[in-house]
Amino acid sequence: MRYKLYYWPGVQGRGEYVRLAFEEAGVSYDEVAVRRGTGPIMKFMKSRTIAHPPFAPPYLKVGALIIGQTANILHYVGARFGLAPKEEGGRLWAHQLQLTITDFIKEAHDTHHPISGNLYFEEQKAAAIRRTADFKKSRAPKFLGYFERVIAQNPARSGLTIGRRVTYPDLSLFQVVEGMRYAFPKAMARLEKKLPLTVALHDRIAKRPRIAAYLASDRRPPFHNHDIFRRYPALDR
Amino acid sequence: MRYKLYYWPGVQGRGEYVRLAFEEAGVSYDEVAVRRGTGPIMKFMKSRTIAHPPFAPPYLKVGALIIGQTANILHYVGARFGLAPKEEGGRLWAHQLQLTITDFIKEAHDTHHPISGNLYFEEQKAAAIRRTADFKKSRAPKFLGYFERVIAQNPARSGLTIGRRVTYPDLSLFQVVEGMRYAFPKAMARLEKKLPLTVALHDRIAKRPRIAAYLASDRRPPFHNHDIFRRYPALDR
Repeated sequence: MRYKLYYWPGVQGRGEYVRLAFEEAGVSYDEVAVRRGTGPIMKFMKSRTIAHPPFAPPYLKVGALIIGQTANILHYVGARFGLAPKEEGGRLWAHQLQLTITDFIKEAHDTHHPISGNLYFEEQKAAAIRRTADFKKSRAPKFLGYFERVIAQNPARSGLTIGRRVTYPDLSLFQVVEGMRYAFPKAMARLEKKLPLTVALHDRIAKRPRIAAYLASDRRPPFHNHDIFRRYPALDR
Repeated sequence: MRYKLYYWPGVQGRGEYVRLAFEEAGVSYDEVAVRRGTGPIMKFMKSRTIAHPPFAPPYLKVGALIIGQTANILHYVGARFGLAPKEEGGRLWAHQLQLTITDFIKEAHDTHHPISGNLYFEEQKAAAIRRTADFKKSRAPKFLGYFERVIAQNPARSGLTIGRRVTYPDLSLFQVVEGMRYAFPKAMARLEKKLPLTVALHDRIAKRPRIAAYLASDRRPPFHNHDIFRRYPALDR
């Protein structure tokens, strides 16, 4: 297959944003670690000889090209798959939205690991409770409210983030809603009252035939607490 | 002027990576908030009518185009200013490196604000001490060691991150070293022993005529504790 995706098997994580783009486009991809285990992921990251070693998964191998960083991968495939505007200004806008989603995902992760990814949740639970309180009160409403406004201000008034056709930021925003619902069901139910356009976009993406087929397939990893979005009851009281 | 940069005046922050690209390229730019205060920054962010509202500064206005997210701005100007490779694979690699620097900067910021940007340092000092210990022991060596390896594995063996000519990731890596030296002088002195290529790159960038002139000018904001890189003695024992 032309496209080889390197990401942790069984984990949505950052790889999921890339998977959703491939699935919506109907482009087949080789999930290398699903097929062969995680060894090949580490091989390129640890290589002392390749010119472009990736810092972390996900990364995409296309021929001799190795493309790392989720948003960078989407920037590359988005244009090729018809999931981004064609003109430069539109491509930059799509990428800008994706980078803001990247920032949000990092903050969502750090709710449960505010001190260190090297420590267990229980070792940083008190700090996690404080950070999550701020996240739910301030950061999540700010980020999600921003995307709600982006949909509202889209001159096409299409209910999508950009123009009249589905682009990769729509798929990513769908995944953000999925993740927030998993991690913070109570808080997200409250937040959604102020996010009617975002919820409508989520529901519309979920019904896209290829996305619906993907979500029902065993290619879609389940949510669990070895991922970015995690459900800890202590963080969703 | 053709390029209007919107960022907080007197703060290096994320805007500094953009300023360094303009300065090295010798392209003049209008620092809107230096000239007119911060009002205009908020105007575009809060607008309920523009199609592409930025989430946060820095953003760059070029004619009708508003480009947000630091790495996205550098992706745009890099190619135009001769500060990025011309072919697509090289541009993606430069952008990938910048996005990894973006990740590092966020982690450097969160050392002093691990709980919330809405709280004072003193209100999260205990958590900051724990997070910083992990940052100095694990995260900073991992990120900086990665960039050291990128320079070592550059097939051109030029002492730069990419090819034989200075690109924007070199300027950004220079700024990271500057920031780390300001924030963690003791820890960084230890780390630098294992980063000879990175230190040499830093010194080489500092001597570039336009960069040296910029650093000596009053356009370069000073370091201080209202920025991303902050010096708190409690975090650098």
